[in-house]
Amino acid sequence: MHPGKRPVNGWAPGGRYARGVTFPVVGMVGGGQLARMTHESGIPLGIRFKLLSDTPQDSAAQVVNEVVIGDYRDLDTLREFARGCDVITFDHEHVPTEHLRALEADGIPVRPGPDALVHAQDKGVMRAKLDAIGVPCPRHRIVRDPADVAAFADELGRGGHEAPSGKGGGRRAGGFPVVLKTVRGGYDGKGVWVVNSAEEAAEPFRAGVPVLAEEKVDFVRELAANVVRSPHGQAVAYPVVESRQVNGVCDTVIAPAPGLDETLALRAEEMALGIAKELDVVGHLAVELFQTRDGRVLVNELAMRPHNSGHWTMDGAITSQFANHVRAVLDLPLGDPRPRAPWTVMVNVLGGDYPDMYSAYLHCMARDPQLKIHMYGKDVKPGRKVGHVNTYGDDLDDVLERARHAAGYLRGTITE
Amino acid sequence: MHPGKRPVNGWAPGGRYARGVTFPVVGMVGGGQLARMTHESGIPLGIRFKLLSDTPQDSAAQVVNEVVIGDYRDLDTLREFARGCDVITFDHEHVPTEHLRALEADGIPVRPGPDALVHAQDKGVMRAKLDAIGVPCPRHRIVRDPADVAAFADELGRGGHEAPSGKGGGRRAGGFPVVLKTVRGGYDGKGVWVVNSAEEAAEPFRAGVPVLAEEKVDFVRELAANVVRSPHGQAVAYPVVESRQVNGVCDTVIAPAPGLDETLALRAEEMALGIAKELDVVGHLAVELFQTRDGRVLVNELAMRPHNSGHWTMDGAITSQFANHVRAVLDLPLGDPRPRAPWTVMVNVLGGDYPDMYSAYLHCMARDPQLKIHMYGKDVKPGRKVGHVNTYGDDLDDVLERARHAAGYLRGTITE
Repeated sequence: MHPGKRPVNGWAPGGRYARGVTFPVVGMVGGGQLARMTHESGIPLGIRFKLLSDTPQDSAAQVVNEVVIGDYRDLDTLREFARGCDVITFDHEHVPTEHLRALEADGIPVRPGPDALVHAQDKGVMRAKLDAIGVPCPRHRIVRDPADVAAFADELGRGGHEAPSGKGGGRRAGGFPVVLKTVRGGYDGKGVWVVNSAEEAAEPFRAGVPVLAEEKVDFVRELAANVVRSPHGQAVAYPVVESRQVNGVCDTVIAPAPGLDETLALRAEEMALGIAKELDVVGHLAVELFQTRDGRVLVNELAMRPHNSGHWTMDGAITSQFANHVRAVLDLPLGDPRPRAPWTVMVNVLGGDYPDMYSAYLHCMARDPQLKIHMYGKDVKPGRKVGHVNTYGDDLDDVLERARHAAGYLRGTITE
Repeated sequence: MHPGKRPVNGWAPGGRYARGVTFPVVGMVGGGQLARMTHESGIPLGIRFKLLSDTPQDSAAQVVNEVVIGDYRDLDTLREFARGCDVITFDHEHVPTEHLRALEADGIPVRPGPDALVHAQDKGVMRAKLDAIGVPCPRHRIVRDPADVAAFADELGRGGHEAPSGKGGGRRAGGFPVVLKTVRGGYDGKGVWVVNSAEEAAEPFRAGVPVLAEEKVDFVRELAANVVRSPHGQAVAYPVVESRQVNGVCDTVIAPAPGLDETLALRAEEMALGIAKELDVVGHLAVELFQTRDGRVLVNELAMRPHNSGHWTMDGAITSQFANHVRAVLDLPLGDPRPRAPWTVMVNVLGGDYPDMYSAYLHCMARDPQLKIHMYGKDVKPGRKVGHVNTYGDDLDDVLERARHAAGYLRGTITE
């Protein structure tokens, strides 16, 4: 019997690898650090992992027992990989939607499913759906060419093309600057342009992918609302966090978001729970938000997998985003998402000029015995995410300083 | 260059597996749950594991990437395994001491080293050393045969054969009952007999292993003092815990030990730190203690590896015993051992009559979203340790009840 045919729930577990052990096997597509940390969180749960990785050196491939090296863009590879898995989940959104539908047609549970995941894969589909369910977003529309971008900018300038959120965002002469995004394939600032004129708007169209134009929101800060939802509809919400980006890459996350108005925090959590329900998301959903100067929250991006804005939960919450993602895709009851400390701070460790971080890592451990370091086993390249640090405590300034110092020292930008 | 020849410290890391990644590789001998949880704790540290396991189905072999199947009693197997490892450590004490000396002679760091580990392997050597350094133990001596056991009992009865601890333990007519232990190979109550007469004392001598006789200590409870020590001499002490045994097997651990007199707690911690220093232990040292009715602490057993009495640290301490063991054997600075909650309770999950725990596991998650379950991926056999649960909080009664209920439900002894 094809293991994928077995229903994945507590009463009919499927795993068949270890003798006697009937706990299910999770098939993880993608060998990055999200897969690595999901595997780490699955070990105490007694859940076995099977990994589909591009290379044996990928972050997760170094620490998972059963690793298949292959291309997730190839359906036959995915089908072969899925044998012996009770459910398939992902550490990225790049698996072609049609392949996911094919796996489902084979009877293999895919979580999140293709109908949900497409909203994290295609920004055009995502915006259309959020408009349809009345979730406030930046004003936006698909544009055909630079001239169309200028037309969209005019609409913004005239305060037209209102989003369902009602009240318009910042008005500018001619509506520029405008944000342009290819609807597929972008991440960490890639596939995103901010243009000040039609003349600057040529490049995004070169890829031949549909381009989404959005107003450049006048925000005071970025927030993230992270929730986890299971197939039987149970959902939990983590506290809303502040996410600070540097050059389009997440740099610092503070949990909970300092000084966030309770009503706004509640609205953001309800918005994320509503999106998870309406889009039938299974697993972890990250909703990246803009907090506008005029007191609104607008949805920036969606991610349907464990997310950088949730890394703080590994040391700062009762149940981590990774453990809850595993529990969700297996339709297990979800764990308590509440924080364990008044403040938890995550700072990403980016590669610097020194290829070997080991001695810096040793220094950081000696300086701060409470520091929680998470290294991904990745080659150090300038600007590349190679790990993160978590700190927690009662005093936000202290917690922030400790995390920033450690991350800066590991990168080599702080030397004392 | 033989990787074992490289000094293991932060300034000369040795790992050579991932491209560019220079973090060291830890060779773990033994594929049990201690190895599994040590690997789990090594993932965020970016430390790579190589595992020597008896079978591919062993607890740790299911979750580690690089697994060598072989017999730890065979020196050639150990030598081959050690290639590419920067340090060798263990999840049990059963590797022959002479093999460890041979590996050291090859230039491979073995931590803890054979000269330390022998004290955890041979109870006779351990008692002699603790006597020599003035650590209070139950009165004891090596006995030759049942008649010699009777002679030892007489000495106890006459209050003779004082241990360096001075004040004698409980006096009994003829000194029986007497505890007999084979000096090697015992664990979880195996290799231990309590005899009430010379007639009952025949069996321990059948194994042909030297037998240690000890007074049966009149204790109020058992405690454990857990410490971690690194090669450069840094050491940390976890709070002293109460350990409750059932049929010679650890059942419940409460951290910290409720109502323990501060002076006695401090004495126990200092005793454990002193033993680690005097025996040159590297890594985690568990010192199992008797708290006597007359207010002393006597050393029962030593374990030089992560220990069941330290499993609570995975969810209850800032740094777990496993993470600190990894940091110690690599001579990295140690992490903060302090507790994160007022009370943490660990209860072992033993196998019951039902081979499949998955539905019970699901029920426990649903009943207590704060429960921390740790499953080892082992076949369920009656009485076998297959996992543990941790709970923590402010109210000891509540924390105890939650942990006991979950463990009992998983075993099948509690059904509502």
